[in-house]
Amino acid sequence: MSIRIGILGYGNLGRGVESAVMQNPDMELVGVFTRRNPSSIQLKTEGVPVLKADELPAWKDKIDVLVLCGGSATDLATQTPAYAGMFNVIDSYDTHANIPAHFNDVDSAAKAGGKTALISCGWDPGMFSLNRLYSECILSEGASYTFWGKGVSQGHSDAIRRIEGVADARQYTIPVESAVEAVRSGSNPELTTRQKHTRECFVVAKEGADKARIENEIKTMPNYFADYDTTVHFISQEELDRDHKGLPHGGYVIRTGVTGVNKENKHVIEYKLKLDSNPEFTGSVLVCYARAIFRLASEGRTGCMTVFDIAPAYLSARSGEELRAKML
Amino acid sequence: MSIRIGILGYGNLGRGVESAVMQNPDMELVGVFTRRNPSSIQLKTEGVPVLKADELPAWKDKIDVLVLCGGSATDLATQTPAYAGMFNVIDSYDTHANIPAHFNDVDSAAKAGGKTALISCGWDPGMFSLNRLYSECILSEGASYTFWGKGVSQGHSDAIRRIEGVADARQYTIPVESAVEAVRSGSNPELTTRQKHTRECFVVAKEGADKARIENEIKTMPNYFADYDTTVHFISQEELDRDHKGLPHGGYVIRTGVTGVNKENKHVIEYKLKLDSNPEFTGSVLVCYARAIFRLASEGRTGCMTVFDIAPAYLSARSGEELRAKML
Repeated sequence: MSIRIGILGYGNLGRGVESAVMQNPDMELVGVFTRRNPSSIQLKTEGVPVLKADELPAWKDKIDVLVLCGGSATDLATQTPAYAGMFNVIDSYDTHANIPAHFNDVDSAAKAGGKTALISCGWDPGMFSLNRLYSECILSEGASYTFWGKGVSQGHSDAIRRIEGVADARQYTIPVESAVEAVRSGSNPELTTRQKHTRECFVVAKEGADKARIENEIKTMPNYFADYDTTVHFISQEELDRDHKGLPHGGYVIRTGVTGVNKENKHVIEYKLKLDSNPEFTGSVLVCYARAIFRLASEGRTGCMTVFDIAPAYLSARSGEELRAKML
Repeated sequence: MSIRIGILGYGNLGRGVESAVMQNPDMELVGVFTRRNPSSIQLKTEGVPVLKADELPAWKDKIDVLVLCGGSATDLATQTPAYAGMFNVIDSYDTHANIPAHFNDVDSAAKAGGKTALISCGWDPGMFSLNRLYSECILSEGASYTFWGKGVSQGHSDAIRRIEGVADARQYTIPVESAVEAVRSGSNPELTTRQKHTRECFVVAKEGADKARIENEIKTMPNYFADYDTTVHFISQEELDRDHKGLPHGGYVIRTGVTGVNKENKHVIEYKLKLDSNPEFTGSVLVCYARAIFRLASEGRTGCMTVFDIAPAYLSARSGEELRAKML
């Protein structure tokens, strides 16, 4: 019997989850739920219904794990707790500062409903968090660094698009290679925001717009760009569509540390991702954790968890015997 | 109250565990047990007794986790099952083909004694296994590759030392950089043993020994060297002691895979270790997993586990709240 997956929200991430389900034969997509008009949505999977989000309660016994694919800023803080009492749920909530509050909200709802929930799953938070944790536990004396990119930041691209005179934009976050090298060397550098990443912007200006003003507004925008070395390229819509349509991303988690009675030996642990499609990779992480949540729920576990709380074997469709024989 | 650690076997790995315990304030080394004459051993930790292995049964209630630091070939296959009924135990058993049998032996003994056991912990098997598992679960359509080195293989160094006329030797396993690059590119290369690694040997010949014969015996040695491009350097004992005294190691686990409805997007997950001291790093992994085993035992879990069965949060001295707030 397949694990029955539901998707709430059919944007980039929802489509990423859909294609990941197709790649896992022990899973089956049973419904996509949306706040838009369902007839406006055409799925990639044949024979699966698209339904109004309001209809979810009627699907309570027909979905094993509901994957919430909304945005952290607007949707997940309310959606995940709202559905966690009715379904086993999983989300990719990534507003780091609010994770503890979100965890508590989801945990209460899941426990009240006797369901299992996983929040903040994906690659950061998610696989990067796991690597920060494992490497800190192994090298207890050391320093950890996370670099993001080269990749498209959708939040920063949106911020540029809100500037007057901008028709479209794409922003890349780029790690400073010399900073990555300094970290790898084990020299434990103190790095400012500016020293870790640069930002590169491809901007389509509206006809007659003042490009010098747009460039200045981008480079001085607080939080988003002011603390970074930012370059701005004005290009045509055709060039943007041709050269910057993808959503690549990636990055590095690096920990360096010392061991030995005199702390004489250095070690470097590096985890690196290079992703052609951020939402499809995130969707793939969500889907293997959906398998884990289904199993944990079947064992009677209730309440909210994070990737820290889930033993790796739960992610795999293989048996324990097979994992020990082939993967250990 | 500290977690009380015992060590059985005081070779390189035992010393690595000892120094890792020093770096973790929630742990305490309470005894080192040996089959040698205890008075021949001088620990780095003050005030800790060195005792005959025969005395272990009397320490049943004074040790929370016993870390078995013998060799896989000769010691662990019998030692771990022998002590798993009496102590919570952890070992680094690395004879991959025999892991399933070893698991069953240790599992039976641990269950009979109501104890918790972890086998095959370290970096390979261990952290590399975890990365093979996580990355295969995420990228279900793809290929995985493990490269080892640059690092000292003690088994290969020993094999050279057994050749007539050899006084001492050190062997480095070196990944072929072009093969690593081909894997990273996502081209899914089929790689032979020879294409993945080279072997470099530093050999001290006894006075008057026939170097040409030694070199030929090394290069044609079945299993160890015959399938590899091997280089042999004859050096003096002084040079060996000066330049090749350390036990560095490391390597890569790389998985590449595709996602998307048309499998149009490529992804690369890479985990990389660069270690100045193989036994001290392995000891550091063992010690954080000893923490996990202590906790799992406190929760009443019994039987044998592997790194696949342990949720990452168990490795950390931090609380769940702190992990979610700071590491996720």
